[in-house]
Amino acid sequence: MPRRLLDQIDAPDDLKGLSHDELTQVAQDVRDTIISVITERGGHLASNLGVVELTLALHRVFDSPNDSLVWDTTNQTYTHKLVTGRRDEFQNIRLEGGLSGFGEPSESPHDTLCAGHAGTGLSIALGIAEGAANRRTGSWTVAVVGDGAMTSGSSFEALNNIVHLNPEKFIVVLNDNGMSISENIGFLTNWRKRLITHPEFEAMIGRMRTLLRRMPKGDLAYELVRRFKTGLAGLIVPTMLWTEMGFQYLGPVDGHDFKQLEETLRQARNATRRVPLVHVVTHKGHGYEPAEDDPVKFHQPSSPLGEGPAAPTYSKVFAQTLARLMRDDESVTGISAAMLEGTGLVDVRREFPDRVFDVGIAEQHAVSMAAGMASNGLNPFVSIYSTFLQRAFDQVVHDICIQSLPVTLIADRAGIVGEDGKTHHGAFDLSYLRCLPNAVVAAPMDENELQHLIYTAYKHRGPFAIRIARGAATGAPLDADLKELPLGKGAVVREGGDVVIFGLGKAAGAAVEAAERLAEYGIECGVVNPIFVKPLDVDLIRDAAAAMRRIVTVEENVLAGGFGSAVLEALSEAGMEDVSVHRIGMPDSFIEHGTAADQRRGLELDAEGIARQVLSVFFPEAESQTSGADREVAARA
Amino acid sequence: MPRRLLDQIDAPDDLKGLSHDELTQVAQDVRDTIISVITERGGHLASNLGVVELTLALHRVFDSPNDSLVWDTTNQTYTHKLVTGRRDEFQNIRLEGGLSGFGEPSESPHDTLCAGHAGTGLSIALGIAEGAANRRTGSWTVAVVGDGAMTSGSSFEALNNIVHLNPEKFIVVLNDNGMSISENIGFLTNWRKRLITHPEFEAMIGRMRTLLRRMPKGDLAYELVRRFKTGLAGLIVPTMLWTEMGFQYLGPVDGHDFKQLEETLRQARNATRRVPLVHVVTHKGHGYEPAEDDPVKFHQPSSPLGEGPAAPTYSKVFAQTLARLMRDDESVTGISAAMLEGTGLVDVRREFPDRVFDVGIAEQHAVSMAAGMASNGLNPFVSIYSTFLQRAFDQVVHDICIQSLPVTLIADRAGIVGEDGKTHHGAFDLSYLRCLPNAVVAAPMDENELQHLIYTAYKHRGPFAIRIARGAATGAPLDADLKELPLGKGAVVREGGDVVIFGLGKAAGAAVEAAERLAEYGIECGVVNPIFVKPLDVDLIRDAAAAMRRIVTVEENVLAGGFGSAVLEALSEAGMEDVSVHRIGMPDSFIEHGTAADQRRGLELDAEGIARQVLSVFFPEAESQTSGADREVAARA
Repeated sequence: MPRRLLDQIDAPDDLKGLSHDELTQVAQDVRDTIISVITERGGHLASNLGVVELTLALHRVFDSPNDSLVWDTTNQTYTHKLVTGRRDEFQNIRLEGGLSGFGEPSESPHDTLCAGHAGTGLSIALGIAEGAANRRTGSWTVAVVGDGAMTSGSSFEALNNIVHLNPEKFIVVLNDNGMSISENIGFLTNWRKRLITHPEFEAMIGRMRTLLRRMPKGDLAYELVRRFKTGLAGLIVPTMLWTEMGFQYLGPVDGHDFKQLEETLRQARNATRRVPLVHVVTHKGHGYEPAEDDPVKFHQPSSPLGEGPAAPTYSKVFAQTLARLMRDDESVTGISAAMLEGTGLVDVRREFPDRVFDVGIAEQHAVSMAAGMASNGLNPFVSIYSTFLQRAFDQVVHDICIQSLPVTLIADRAGIVGEDGKTHHGAFDLSYLRCLPNAVVAAPMDENELQHLIYTAYKHRGPFAIRIARGAATGAPLDADLKELPLGKGAVVREGGDVVIFGLGKAAGAAVEAAERLAEYGIECGVVNPIFVKPLDVDLIRDAAAAMRRIVTVEENVLAGGFGSAVLEALSEAGMEDVSVHRIGMPDSFIEHGTAADQRRGLELDAEGIARQVLSVFFPEAESQTSGADREVAARA
Repeated sequence: MPRRLLDQIDAPDDLKGLSHDELTQVAQDVRDTIISVITERGGHLASNLGVVELTLALHRVFDSPNDSLVWDTTNQTYTHKLVTGRRDEFQNIRLEGGLSGFGEPSESPHDTLCAGHAGTGLSIALGIAEGAANRRTGSWTVAVVGDGAMTSGSSFEALNNIVHLNPEKFIVVLNDNGMSISENIGFLTNWRKRLITHPEFEAMIGRMRTLLRRMPKGDLAYELVRRFKTGLAGLIVPTMLWTEMGFQYLGPVDGHDFKQLEETLRQARNATRRVPLVHVVTHKGHGYEPAEDDPVKFHQPSSPLGEGPAAPTYSKVFAQTLARLMRDDESVTGISAAMLEGTGLVDVRREFPDRVFDVGIAEQHAVSMAAGMASNGLNPFVSIYSTFLQRAFDQVVHDICIQSLPVTLIADRAGIVGEDGKTHHGAFDLSYLRCLPNAVVAAPMDENELQHLIYTAYKHRGPFAIRIARGAATGAPLDADLKELPLGKGAVVREGGDVVIFGLGKAAGAAVEAAERLAEYGIECGVVNPIFVKPLDVDLIRDAAAAMRRIVTVEENVLAGGFGSAVLEALSEAGMEDVSVHRIGMPDSFIEHGTAADQRRGLELDAEGIARQVLSVFFPEAESQTSGADREVAARA
């Protein structure tokens, strides 16, 4: 095996003396490493393969970490990690204790920020540049933004302000790979698809042509106009738009050609009057044929080593149920924000291309548009990952809840998400949705309940949020007929007289398993599936509290303001102070990356952890006894 | 007094037969009405005076409510209200039970939505248009958007999707008044200020000119090119940008000329290939000299009838304290999202023009930019109204809290806001901020505590949110020196052995007053000023609970997940189940408009209401007794 040049790159400076041939070899080493690790481990593949040369060029032209490289979304920083001293740890990326799959300042001074939500890079970079100017560090700030992230409103807000402030030593690199995750609908970046057709421009060219033809040597003049028009068109698309905005446009540059890249980046450093925008055209999955052919699939391939899910995912069941509703009712629509694949809506769109909308990375618009649809006779279902729904929080409050419009929000990937880590857990949706007047908030314990909840939401004439977990559902058989569930009514899943666990959503299953373990200690543990967080089944809570005086709540949400708090509120309002409540949920800290199973185990959100907590809080004597000990003794402890 | 033509307009149809002269008279009547009511009552003045003619023209060319007129922000719908059957109620606008100052579907079928946050109109209109297309109603949808709202990211997301979907019977009207609330920084709308200077374009023109001059009749050719260039430049600004985006640009139109307006709107109805964008130039405050001269001041004048505030506002004290910090430390910056006036930062910017940033209606960018600044050595303070901070919720989570960056958020106008009503109350910030790891959340009881909290936030090396109330502070004298308050430590304001009220922020004062009333019933009521909602002063809560067993919490936030819930959580975690807690706060519904005093009274958030609740919950026997009854009897009830 030939010695790898990449093994000699311990820091960006080591790249600077290399020839372009040597760089090409480093790029190949980087690609080999990424492909071998990520196809085994899972992660963002295609986007990382697209920016290998760009990353190397940036590290040669700039001086990180003195200069700040700000990657929008930071899921494409694998090359960056490999050449900034993290080569040897790369094989443990996304594993617990290993490298993050995103930027991470605690890993390296070369990482300016951790970011997993698209559209924040330009704003953060502008803040960093203002810091550099204020402290007179003389450092450059370079923001690298993908065309997908350019569709987000936050990027636009930042562009406005960048043009306005016109900061020095600031460069925007547009990484144009011709597509966002599902489909790019941004007018700032979709030049590839369109020809310019300005009617006024055409008319003016026509008038000029007519005039020139009447002149001597009219043919030459005509040819000149023709060339002028072509040249101008070439410039206008895409120069004009960025120039008109106030940037100095440079490009387009082949993002896989070191020479072009470095020359243009150096040219950008010499720009004086306006902030340069370097337009780099890259190819997702570059250098790896399967990913080049299907970059959507290879955006974030799952680990092929993991077993295929035994049951369908919650997302899939949502999508199938929605399609079922859409077949019967023309007014039902589906909306995704650049996550057609992840939310399962891609298949639904195939069947109903006119009623499934992918708006791009634009969660705010997705929710407000749904409000408009609902106000005019439609029944929109908006599926957005819980963590990204945060982007549309104001729209949920202002456009849906204030007007109490019949929009259904699917908060997908709610709770623990595993390897994507702290920027992606759906840890807050119960807290930020439960506080909103007019909202119904529900979480199904399995996919059968999910389909009924979707139907219930469809029938309900107001805002309705359903949070679903990431990954495979429970394998519960699906009822043939959809039915409407009574709002605010939970269900007793298991009887028991010593203690009752309210297990919300996915936690209901874990609670049942925990109850079975507790039975071995002679403890009769009931389990309730609350289904609704709002309105809460206050009667059920009061009855359980009156009967048992010991309540445990389990949820995959932070404890502050979550489902357990709602139970405390209900008990307080009922004047039932003499009930012991133990709340289990996500802690008041951000959970790093690792497998979801490990995370649940670590946070004691799995059956074993729940049982252990019930024992130690309510039955400490039983805990120290062996299984099968006298039930009476334990339960009365 | 001449009879008013406006009195004959009971519905938009009544406008349709009028001549332009008659219309001019109606416009004058509308202006007179708005000026007379709003200068007396307070409200949005300048923006409404700017769209009188535009509104009348829209109602003549379109057929509301069959056609949907969607106003972005809806605070400029006064004319619309006056000609859609609400003329006689107009004098009671913004009063309790009177017309809303915003659009309100429950008032009239002509109001498509209620909206008080800028940047939602295009999305909602697109949803309405999709509904019309789906149901084949043949209706038009017209979105009227101000240039200020165009700086918001949500508008951009909508523009992207409008161009992509290219809906039929959909028109965008850009109401360009050359300014947003403070300052317009949007590149989509700031043509007035810039000339085109495309270097490539200049060079190409130069080459063409040289070539043409060599030809026979070169002078003519040269002249032709000159004209061509001028013509093209005229088209490019602003045609090119919108056309390039994919709209059919129509305009600019004089927004105070009926003939031009109606002709262009009719022309827009005949557009076939692309969505027409009608560029209307209006003048804020048109027809009322004081407002034309100072549209910022007259954006939303306060009622001159109200007494001037005896004490400075919390906003003012924030701004003064920030300026004080900025004088001593160059790294301190201030950020506003189009609310320089409202947040008090306008004066600070005068002193520190380079360190106070107004980013426009772009809350997301404001918060992310602050994160970037904080990551690079600065100490940013971002002041945003509580209700608008919802727009930046994801950025608070993702860019500030995950990285635990030292950004201070001032959630201004937190709690009850009065006349602006349901879209503007700051009712949720405690719930949506308290759930976030790494966040400190505080609320001062008076302006002296505010200045110390600002200093405390400045010293703290992590995220820090301070919520402040709208309007005048308490008049408390300001300490000469700023001091650091211990994090998570509340203060006992009043001793008392029967019950203790935890009054958060502004409610602390009301709690003290309530305690004094309760003393008349012989009840010893203690008062605690918690200062911090997170971290909570658990020791103080436990001690109070152990001593009194009766706790009352008062906050201007919804009860779900708010401060009172935090107290319940703390008591539950301490295993103190035998404590009665009564939580007072905003209800699980949206509060309409009215005076803040009336709203507090109605919600029993004032001293009288708090005292009454304490009596009825904990001392029902004392409640029925006269003042001065035997304390012992009452307290033990």
